[in-house]
Amino acid sequence: MITLTSDFGLKDPYVAEMKGVILSINSKTMIVDITHDIEKFDIRTGAFILASVAPYFPKGTVHIVVVDPGVGTNRRPILVESKQGFFVGPDNGVLMLAAQKLGSEHIFELNNPKFMLPKISSTFHGRDVFAPAATYLDVGVKPSEFGPEINNAINPEFVKVEKTNGSFIGEVLYIDGFGNIITNISQNEFAETKAVKVKLPNISVTLSLKKTYAEAKSQEPIALFGSHGFLEIALDQDNAAEKFHVTAGDKIQVTPV
Amino acid sequence: MITLTSDFGLKDPYVAEMKGVILSINSKTMIVDITHDIEKFDIRTGAFILASVAPYFPKGTVHIVVVDPGVGTNRRPILVESKQGFFVGPDNGVLMLAAQKLGSEHIFELNNPKFMLPKISSTFHGRDVFAPAATYLDVGVKPSEFGPEINNAINPEFVKVEKTNGSFIGEVLYIDGFGNIITNISQNEFAETKAVKVKLPNISVTLSLKKTYAEAKSQEPIALFGSHGFLEIALDQDNAAEKFHVTAGDKIQVTPV
Amino acid sequence: MITLTSDFGLKDPYVAEMKGVILSINSKTMIVDITHDIEKFDIRTGAFILASVAPYFPKGTVHIVVVDPGVGTNRRPILVESKQGFFVGPDNGVLMLAAQKLGSEHIFELNNPKFMLPKISSTFHGRDVFAPAATYLDVGVKPSEFGPEINNAINPEFVKVEKTNGSFIGEVLYIDGFGNIITNISQNEFAETKAVKVKLPNISVTLSLKKTYAEAKSQEPIALFGSHGFLEIALDQDNAAEKFHVTAGDKIQVTPV
Repeated sequence: MITLTSDFGLKDPYVAEMKGVILSINSKTMIVDITHDIEKFDIRTGAFILASVAPYFPKGTVHIVVVDPGVGTNRRPILVESKQGFFVGPDNGVLMLAAQKLGSEHIFELNNPKFMLPKISSTFHGRDVFAPAATYLDVGVKPSEFGPEINNAINPEFVKVEKTNGSFIGEVLYIDGFGNIITNISQNEFAETKAVKVKLPNISVTLSLKKTYAEAKSQEPIALFGSHGFLEIALDQDNAAEKFHVTAGDKIQVTPV
Repeated sequence: MITLTSDFGLKDPYVAEMKGVILSINSKTMIVDITHDIEKFDIRTGAFILASVAPYFPKGTVHIVVVDPGVGTNRRPILVESKQGFFVGPDNGVLMLAAQKLGSEHIFELNNPKFMLPKISSTFHGRDVFAPAATYLDVGVKPSEFGPEINNAINPEFVKVEKTNGSFIGEVLYIDGFGNIITNISQNEFAETKAVKVKLPNISVTLSLKKTYAEAKSQEPIALFGSHGFLEIALDQDNAAEKFHVTAGDKIQVTPV
Repeated sequence: MITLTSDFGLKDPYVAEMKGVILSINSKTMIVDITHDIEKFDIRTGAFILASVAPYFPKGTVHIVVVDPGVGTNRRPILVESKQGFFVGPDNGVLMLAAQKLGSEHIFELNNPKFMLPKISSTFHGRDVFAPAATYLDVGVKPSEFGPEINNAINPEFVKVEKTNGSFIGEVLYIDGFGNIITNISQNEFAETKAVKVKLPNISVTLSLKKTYAEAKSQEPIALFGSHGFLEIALDQDNAAEKFHVTAGDKIQVTPV
């Protein structure tokens, strides 16, 4: 099983060409689209999507993520072997939030031409490098056959949460389609907490920590750990991100009270 | 075979998480996306899509529909057993237009934790309740094993057509991507009709009842029974809904003349 | 294997109904969505997408393309048998760029009711004519059984490139999601070329012919042969089409220098 995540959109033929390459190598491959609507070159969102989705797929699934502004330069194509499955994509950080969350075991550079298309376009590694690599991985080729193991993959800022004086300083990872503000702060530290003080660029407020959106009174902002295990700020049936002028990448400070 | 319909969009990871859950229970499941572009919380459109699509799928197909503003409240998750297949989703009416069109036989509440994920988030029953229930149903678990049969499922307004003095009073169900105005008035009563008088909020007009869009003269509005068997108002190669300021939910009165 | 390309969007139930028809005839069919986001009635883009994608799919794949403004008129449904696979759709040119690129061997009209749905709506041949024809083709029915061979299929303007005095006069086929300007001028004639003079409606300029987007200096427009083998005008990490006010269908003159 191979999943596909990209910033290609579905209007252009790029995603379909990747599927054609996969199915030409192994016509029995099950391909699952995750999303292709990531904003162009938005590596953080690509990383968030992969980290959210990978835990729900069967062990051994191969996940391709192509958000790749550096294609054609000397950025490396890589393969991450995690406890849960494989991640294939560019070495620009897009695979590393999932690698951290799920436990990365080994990272390999993809440089074996045996597992690429015969002719590599310099503009479309998704089709010419990542799709064939993922397919050969899916049919059982060992990770170490694709190239040398590396230990200096690029590690992005947005996976880090700083802990000082009982506060957590993290980052807004993502605004979902309902306007919920999803941060990179995870559930582990908040077992007994009933409320949190939240500082965002345009708001500083104390919120109850609820279990469901529906527990909120109308128009009252709440905090909750959403379905991905990350802290969210939400407004029941309304758009929290618009209301508080928050965008992905904003710093956030959270203090249990 | 399982189909998926929702208001999640394809930008967020929600749909992919549902697919991961399904494929983790049975990696051989064939999953077909219907649409995930329903407007947030638009139950009527979800109902229309399901009613349009279900007749074309093989008998026994399991259709999941998640348009679920009440998730986390006490609205029930349900399963409709129809003559054509199974419908899984919230008890808010979204399954009932299809249930009426295709013949509902039994409705069950989904309350058996055996067929849910071990940990139920209160914000995402699509992944934690509906996806596993649908997969177990697809592999042969009997509907009655999921919970008690119920006979008080919520029945929405938009399935009803009133007949008085030779007129039919119904509702605009849906505006399709071509701007065609699709009503909930069905073909059965109009066998011999050549023209209809149509009353909408912003127009009252007599239209010929055509067989094809192309029979219309340029810019002339027509009525026809579209590919779903419902009465449509259309403008050949133009947008009827914009021209007549019609939106889904508008009342419509149709009189054969 | 069957692929689907259309201008239906994924909001409406049309694509799902086609999938239902295919899977009702053969529940084992692998269906691959190419795109359904082609602008309504934009035959040129449909043709470009098919020509880009078909080479990457296994031989024998059946590609359905439904961009069909003339549905319900006397335009013919057709089947193109190429060296690479089969193309099924309306006789309005949408299949012919791929037919030319991949080598068309025979073209048949689809008029055998045995391979259509029992009831043909005049508004939706995608579901009632093309989907069943493609499925029967996929399970092994011979092309000649679908109807008579024809030799007068409609051949659109946008496949033609005129060569005069060392210049090539072609057409802008497509603007991709990154704003790259893709023309119908192919790689064959440019083996040794290092720069080209390009004339578009709003710009006349000499560009270096690069191998990758990343070779461009910031904000410098370049020419390159993209991943489809067609000449593109691009701006590294910027939108060339917006900058030069170019749209699909614009004439373009290219002279190697």
